Amino acid sequence: MVTDNDFRDPDFRRQLNETVNSLLCLKVVPIFNENDAISTRKAPYEDSSGIFWDNDSLAALLALELKADLLVLLSDVEGLYTGPPSDPQSELIHTYVKEKHEGLITFGDKSRVGRGGMTAKVKAAVYAAYAGIPVVITSGFANNNIIKALDGQRVGTLFHCEAIKWASIGDFDAREMAVSSRECARRLQTLSSQERSKILLDIADALEAKEEEILAENEADVAAAQQAGYENSLISRLAMKPGKISSLANSVRVLANMDEPVGRILKRTELADGIILEKTSSPLGVLLIIFESRPDALVQIASLAVRSGNGLLLKGGKEAKRSNAILHKVITSSIPPTVGESLIGLVTSREEIPELLKLDDVIDLVIPRGSNKLVSQIKAATKIPVLGHADGICHVFIDKSADLDMAKRIVLDAKTDYPAACNAMETLLVHEDLVQTGGLNDLILELQEKGVSLFGGPKASSVLSIPEANSFHHEYGALACTVEIVEDVNTAIEHIHRHGSAHTDSIITEDKEVAELFLRQVDSAAVLHNASTRFSDGFRFGLGAEVGISTSRIHARGPVGVEGLLTTRWLARGSGQVVDGDKEIVYTHRDLNLEA
Amino acid sequence: MVTDNDFRDPDFRRQLNETVNSLLCLKVVPIFNENDAISTRKAPYEDSSGIFWDNDSLAALLALELKADLLVLLSDVEGLYTGPPSDPQSELIHTYVKEKHEGLITFGDKSRVGRGGMTAKVKAAVYAAYAGIPVVITSGFANNNIIKALDGQRVGTLFHCEAIKWASIGDFDAREMAVSSRECARRLQTLSSQERSKILLDIADALEAKEEEILAENEADVAAAQQAGYENSLISRLAMKPGKISSLANSVRVLANMDEPVGRILKRTELADGIILEKTSSPLGVLLIIFESRPDALVQIASLAVRSGNGLLLKGGKEAKRSNAILHKVITSSIPPTVGESLIGLVTSREEIPELLKLDDVIDLVIPRGSNKLVSQIKAATKIPVLGHADGICHVFIDKSADLDMAKRIVLDAKTDYPAACNAMETLLVHEDLVQTGGLNDLILELQEKGVSLFGGPKASSVLSIPEANSFHHEYGALACTVEIVEDVNTAIEHIHRHGSAHTDSIITEDKEVAELFLRQVDSAAVLHNASTRFSDGFRFGLGAEVGISTSRIHARGPVGVEGLLTTRWLARGSGQVVDGDKEIVYTHRDLNLEA
Repeated sequence: MVTDNDFRDPDFRRQLNETVNSLLCLKVVPIFNENDAISTRKAPYEDSSGIFWDNDSLAALLALELKADLLVLLSDVEGLYTGPPSDPQSELIHTYVKEKHEGLITFGDKSRVGRGGMTAKVKAAVYAAYAGIPVVITSGFANNNIIKALDGQRVGTLFHCEAIKWASIGDFDAREMAVSSRECARRLQTLSSQERSKILLDIADALEAKEEEILAENEADVAAAQQAGYENSLISRLAMKPGKISSLANSVRVLANMDEPVGRILKRTELADGIILEKTSSPLGVLLIIFESRPDALVQIASLAVRSGNGLLLKGGKEAKRSNAILHKVITSSIPPTVGESLIGLVTSREEIPELLKLDDVIDLVIPRGSNKLVSQIKAATKIPVLGHADGICHVFIDKSADLDMAKRIVLDAKTDYPAACNAMETLLVHEDLVQTGGLNDLILELQEKGVSLFGGPKASSVLSIPEANSFHHEYGALACTVEIVEDVNTAIEHIHRHGSAHTDSIITEDKEVAELFLRQVDSAAVLHNASTRFSDGFRFGLGAEVGISTSRIHARGPVGVEGLLTTRWLARGSGQVVDGDKEIVYTHRDLNLEA
Repeated sequence: MVTDNDFRDPDFRRQLNETVNSLLCLKVVPIFNENDAISTRKAPYEDSSGIFWDNDSLAALLALELKADLLVLLSDVEGLYTGPPSDPQSELIHTYVKEKHEGLITFGDKSRVGRGGMTAKVKAAVYAAYAGIPVVITSGFANNNIIKALDGQRVGTLFHCEAIKWASIGDFDAREMAVSSRECARRLQTLSSQERSKILLDIADALEAKEEEILAENEADVAAAQQAGYENSLISRLAMKPGKISSLANSVRVLANMDEPVGRILKRTELADGIILEKTSSPLGVLLIIFESRPDALVQIASLAVRSGNGLLLKGGKEAKRSNAILHKVITSSIPPTVGESLIGLVTSREEIPELLKLDDVIDLVIPRGSNKLVSQIKAATKIPVLGHADGICHVFIDKSADLDMAKRIVLDAKTDYPAACNAMETLLVHEDLVQTGGLNDLILELQEKGVSLFGGPKASSVLSIPEANSFHHEYGALACTVEIVEDVNTAIEHIHRHGSAHTDSIITEDKEVAELFLRQVDSAAVLHNASTRFSDGFRFGLGAEVGISTSRIHARGPVGVEGLLTTRWLARGSGQVVDGDKEIVYTHRDLNLEA
């Protein structure tokens, strides 16, 4: 449907953000006293039908008078319909296109509440809209419709003088893309494990067969990025090096041969005589993955989706546009028509993301792979569960009983192995006894030697004469860290709970009791004893392909492998059992062996 | 802090919903031509300093003129501070209380952008506010501040003529309640399994010791509900019958003696020589549970929270107010001071719920236990994960090869055992071959005999001469159901995917291949073969205490037991291992036995 396009969000939000300076909420009451400035003015819209005196046209007049950015008219129905609102055949018109809808519409009766029925509202709306003030007619009974209208959401009927132009633009339908992906995923799920493996092997072959084309597109991206003056680090992530394609193809083949993750039986119970319940692993449905720079991520993610039976919507960085497009084409052309190429959708414009993030009824999980900022933005913008971590403020606590050589080795590794990683140490907590023994000083010197800039908490900064840190909740992501002196393991735990991000924290101690206290109490996704925080990673944890690291507490926590792309289903096989008030049935609830 | 109260949401939302009729967004530009009605009027606020010509006071004037419900003034800082905004010691003033803040405030320099610094803004705001128009000063640079202000969220600084009154009201602090609960929960987690069991045993004893007091309060609730003319079904759920207290106490004792759910080792892996990783079960953190009517739910939920090491915020139905208050008091007085009574918070007013639902950084899971409407409302209002199900549109599909006696028994049970339950059958799908054989007719007669009203899809309504259903996506929750004829198992599956709610669906067939196809493909939380949909329930699935039934795909799906209140943590015990670019370490990734 032409009016079903999704233009509102980008257009309206931008417009509101750029131009709205002050906001007035007012109840327009069509009665003014004689001294009132506005009512004494000759109204341009006053006509013989007396429409001026209805509050909708008065509102339109006021909106014009004040050069408003938006006028919202509230009704007792959702908006303007193609017929009487009570008729199930009538459809809500999302965007009024004068050229299309004028004369076509049955306005129905006057609204039941107050003066100014739909006919008057539409007249007022058309008048204001074509004089340049956008108008939304929506229901005043639904919750928050005003806020939704302001927020650019599609509520009620929009009147806009440029509506006719938009009518031809609506070429991106987020919902259609997501729904097709889900339908293809359901067909993918009906395939046998071998058939899904075969798709992956075909993808691997296709990647190698099209190597030249892929590299040519990638070179074009790299050239464009160089010309645009991007940073070298970005360009090096963007460029696909010689041998990259065959190593990618091989990693796809590894996935093709991995144990089938879908349909695994996780639990088997006899409920009663002759009825057996299984909890089995099952695809989530549709994933939306937003990644930056590296085009090889597209291949990894797409093959993981195929392996786990999920639909996938992908959005890559714009600097890798051409590489992503060719990789997407090569991969989807290996998907058999019995499944459908729409299994994997490639989103090409950033403007389309907000539309996708609204589809919490079709998309089951969003995985942003990129900067903390990207993750935070996505989390703030959607109700769909997000797998990822916004912050990685990891701590290492050196207990008084630590082996100081080990402590030094681990602290250096945690900070310097890859300072930009989310599992790098950001805060070093040291037991106060180590101030006297000189252990702290040794550690500090070692860090400084390796070029780590140090910032202190109130205690450490005065003891060590280093600059004071602005905040304990800070991720440097560089060769820098915060140092603080704490009384004991309990104050260390308190510090971590108050200032950390529940990602990964480590204790260095030779005292087993202290270690167990720390392991039991620190409420983070990963808690380590006598090991570097850098181990907190899907590959190092032995999970195979890493989907991401989650600081959310539900679904999957910490480093997440393929199981993060799966959910469970309960399957029961009976022989005619009924519940019937639980009068006759004898529940056995016997745990059975997982092997049938 | 006095201004830190949380009044805005209830007050502002109500005010906006009740009074706002039209909304104008406008950019106030302080230049008008000579003919303009407003500028030619003598301004009551025009003064010798020429402030009239600054856009803030002009906006205030306009707001008064138009009797606006709210005026939002945008600045380049977050709002009004107690000192220069750049000084870290300065605090944002959430609510301007004239009597308190006048004269106390350093306004700082003029804002850097445009005319009208903070001094002018505050003057304008005070002028409008004390003339009856509430004003919010907030940043125009942050995203969506206007929408947040309209939404009653605490952004910027609020000016309101009644601010002084509110200053003494702020006695409910949602965040404080949730944060205290989390702190107590962390202390609860440090207790041993035996100590947590002991708390539960103390709760059980206390319930029995205070039986008289509890029953007296419950009788008062029942009497009030009768007087208020509530339905009998509600009153019967509300009333605690004789023996209820001791049966509740006993169920708490069962929980006290159950296997410890926290700290279970779910997976154990040797990462490399000398470093072992465990995946262990761990409390989620803080739960918010909203339940209706039955006061005994409070006891069950509170004991589950203690057992699983979680903090808990509870909101019960207002009709059970006195029962809930006494039960809460009895339970929390059994919590030792080393943990703290704030472990379990009782929310007494509905107005406080929206504030709690905003705290997605402190509350980890919301479980609404009540009507579908309640669940939908909660889901729409929060970013916190919600465990529950809004719809339970369960299907039974009778295949052509079904044993028809079994089919009849199961269909009757699925519909009539408890028609209001979420796992009751709402739609009966029948293979078209059963039309000819008369099997369909037999089924229909049986249902009609038991008083089930039938509505048909397009095919069934004409074949069976029954009224047509309005929609296939309908939950009757009563002795009524929809019937439709389908071609085969594939069209049945398609129907379920299109119109169902992914809760529970069942197939009746003697054909194993067809059954397995249905079990494999139907993408619902529970899929059954030759068994009634009514089995889809935590107790019947053998999960012990039922936390809820989830139609969400992530975290927990279908009937959920205690494990829905748990998450996992990764614990690694090493002996000094570092990553160091993975140059030296040899990963073994060996799965170990779960028993240490």
